[in-house]
Amino acid sequence: MQDTPKGSRLHIAIFGRRNAGKSSLINALTNQDIALVSDVPGTTTDPVYKAMEILPIGPVMIIDTAGIDDVGDLGTLRVERTMQVLHKADLAIIVVEPESGVTEYEHSLISAMRKRNLPVVCVLNKTDLYPVDEKQVETWKQALDIAILPISARTGAGIEELKGLIIRNAPDDWEGPPIIGDLINPGDMVVLVVPIDLAAPKGRLILPQVQTIRDLLDNDACAVVVKERELKEVLENMAGPPRMVVTDSQEFMKVSADTPPGVLLTSFSILFARHKGDLETLVAGAKAVDHLKAGDKVLISEGCTHHRQADDIGRVKIPRWLRQTVGDELSFEWTAGSTFPENLQQYKLIVHCGACMLNRREMLYRLAVAREAGVPIVNYGLLIAKVHGILQRALKPFPLAQLILEDK
Amino acid sequence: MQDTPKGSRLHIAIFGRRNAGKSSLINALTNQDIALVSDVPGTTTDPVYKAMEILPIGPVMIIDTAGIDDVGDLGTLRVERTMQVLHKADLAIIVVEPESGVTEYEHSLISAMRKRNLPVVCVLNKTDLYPVDEKQVETWKQALDIAILPISARTGAGIEELKGLIIRNAPDDWEGPPIIGDLINPGDMVVLVVPIDLAAPKGRLILPQVQTIRDLLDNDACAVVVKERELKEVLENMAGPPRMVVTDSQEFMKVSADTPPGVLLTSFSILFARHKGDLETLVAGAKAVDHLKAGDKVLISEGCTHHRQADDIGRVKIPRWLRQTVGDELSFEWTAGSTFPENLQQYKLIVHCGACMLNRREMLYRLAVAREAGVPIVNYGLLIAKVHGILQRALKPFPLAQLILEDK
Repeated sequence: MQDTPKGSRLHIAIFGRRNAGKSSLINALTNQDIALVSDVPGTTTDPVYKAMEILPIGPVMIIDTAGIDDVGDLGTLRVERTMQVLHKADLAIIVVEPESGVTEYEHSLISAMRKRNLPVVCVLNKTDLYPVDEKQVETWKQALDIAILPISARTGAGIEELKGLIIRNAPDDWEGPPIIGDLINPGDMVVLVVPIDLAAPKGRLILPQVQTIRDLLDNDACAVVVKERELKEVLENMAGPPRMVVTDSQEFMKVSADTPPGVLLTSFSILFARHKGDLETLVAGAKAVDHLKAGDKVLISEGCTHHRQADDIGRVKIPRWLRQTVGDELSFEWTAGSTFPENLQQYKLIVHCGACMLNRREMLYRLAVAREAGVPIVNYGLLIAKVHGILQRALKPFPLAQLILEDK
Repeated sequence: MQDTPKGSRLHIAIFGRRNAGKSSLINALTNQDIALVSDVPGTTTDPVYKAMEILPIGPVMIIDTAGIDDVGDLGTLRVERTMQVLHKADLAIIVVEPESGVTEYEHSLISAMRKRNLPVVCVLNKTDLYPVDEKQVETWKQALDIAILPISARTGAGIEELKGLIIRNAPDDWEGPPIIGDLINPGDMVVLVVPIDLAAPKGRLILPQVQTIRDLLDNDACAVVVKERELKEVLENMAGPPRMVVTDSQEFMKVSADTPPGVLLTSFSILFARHKGDLETLVAGAKAVDHLKAGDKVLISEGCTHHRQADDIGRVKIPRWLRQTVGDELSFEWTAGSTFPENLQQYKLIVHCGACMLNRREMLYRLAVAREAGVPIVNYGLLIAKVHGILQRALKPFPLAQLILEDK
């Protein structure tokens, strides 16, 4: 049985000072109906990600900030880690306990969250040990300008109400638009072109392919999965044209040639650009390729640290295509994993991977940082379509993105 | 990027006494070209499974027996753990070091391995510290009746030769027959019926479905993936009949009704019964259902400990179907995970899950234990087809299994 992907889990960050009972709260949320699926321990100041199932919320990723709580001085590293969590979380819970009460720590956290439009829920823990002082709680509520739910992680009191608060406060759009479900009709046949190259581990498909098949099934459609070499034959074996062809970006050229002009064609990368982020921003980024000049600095950013292939897309192919398009040398820099530089002004273009290992909120954060710095940002799939001259065709299913592309 | 499934990894068990350098050897094999993908620590006497990539061997599962090595007395638990490893390993490496030399421990290990037809490779480690005493090594070779390769895990001397030995000694058939690749021709279209029920985690497909799609692509065929509800419509939208329809066992009845009589139909469970074990043994087990009588004891065995559903297949559905077929009460017992009882004579039938979390060698071991005890064994998919009266149709792609079914 395969696990729900990270990106399809509501990310809930739990903050609070060391004695506030963060771990007990996680246990209280989990012991009821959930299973601890995985536990990725980090270094002392790294948050720990716990993939869990909380009924009736569904699959979540709990970000346990136990390592970065407010003990001793709030050093630079601690602040940085906190900010990284705020960029990934879809919702935050702040745990307060009666003895220490509400301090500067909670105030500054809530203010940072509000600045980032991050929904936050505040609980007062340990009501089993300390009777709730209504007057005191009222003072805190007014100071923080937030409702405070009294709970006891130990007895379970208030935990069901907390789950309700999580559901009501989670942003409606945390999952983003569907991968493909809204572009098709029930009963449609959609052809997925899946090349089997060295990067595909034996016996598996890569995550975006599996997620797209699943989204088609969830929307009562049919996925016709085929390698690029058999595509033409398969299209001939269908009684009519498919609703759409979706291809791995690296086979765009061949697939475009083999797909009749009347059939909609796009790529997994473009579907995920929309699902995980903001297609329009990335299309604007693709157009910026036309303005690159010799010597310009380009940042290539990957969300994970995968094994490099001999002909690695980020390290070899994209630099080569960009050089060929610009017709001159460019200067490249790379980042991988959860690192994303703050100082982006030095770059003329950012090329981001498909972000299959990032959640939507983190991708939106990166897009926002790029936008604030005034640096165009594009992803692998859109860039590949652009440099091969097939972006216009690939954007046909997305009228708004097409308008941006054609806007001079 | 998804990882190669456990069952598609050559399982290599590493044995040796505590000072023999098992960990250094694993590091030597790994530091060269591999990445430690996962590390599942067990209790003190449990072996540790390390999913790794060793070039040019490919994805392997190293079984590190550090916890069950020969220190102190060889208690019952230690022997039991060793035997469990021997039932899972496709190949064993015994690490000897010059100071302790070859003892009763190595002798008894090799003899147990030979009894189980388990290929074994023997290395003499620490050649960087101790010059190889050719005469001594010759004595050991003759005593153990096995070649002994001198290596140094620390310097890397002999490691490439060891990899060659692993490749040459690995059983040819450790992966079993293909999932579906040998039943189809290049260019074929194969319809896969994938119901989306509560057991399917959000955004994912279950492993056997992904593996079947991948095997079709690897064999230049096309996978048409559809839910049971849309199957009829999809079959009408194809220019001709598909080569085969493969369904989740739980939808066998509906899919059989919707698939024209001339089209081959089978299930993922039956494909995996063949790929992971021995289809003929399991077909014989399915026939044994006809001989069950009131009060008979049935063992239901699952290879993993998954979350139970309300209408769980192993706990609820199969007992219900068997009771309905027999028309009387039966007595059920269950095992889950790596537990498989040795004392099987008390059962009249064993019903095993699809074994997606077991490797082929472990499944073959369980089949052998059942055979020795004279107890028929069937798997979920074959049993479901049997009790619904569609086993004959589902076995059409497998002539030998069909003969066994029809043999009175």
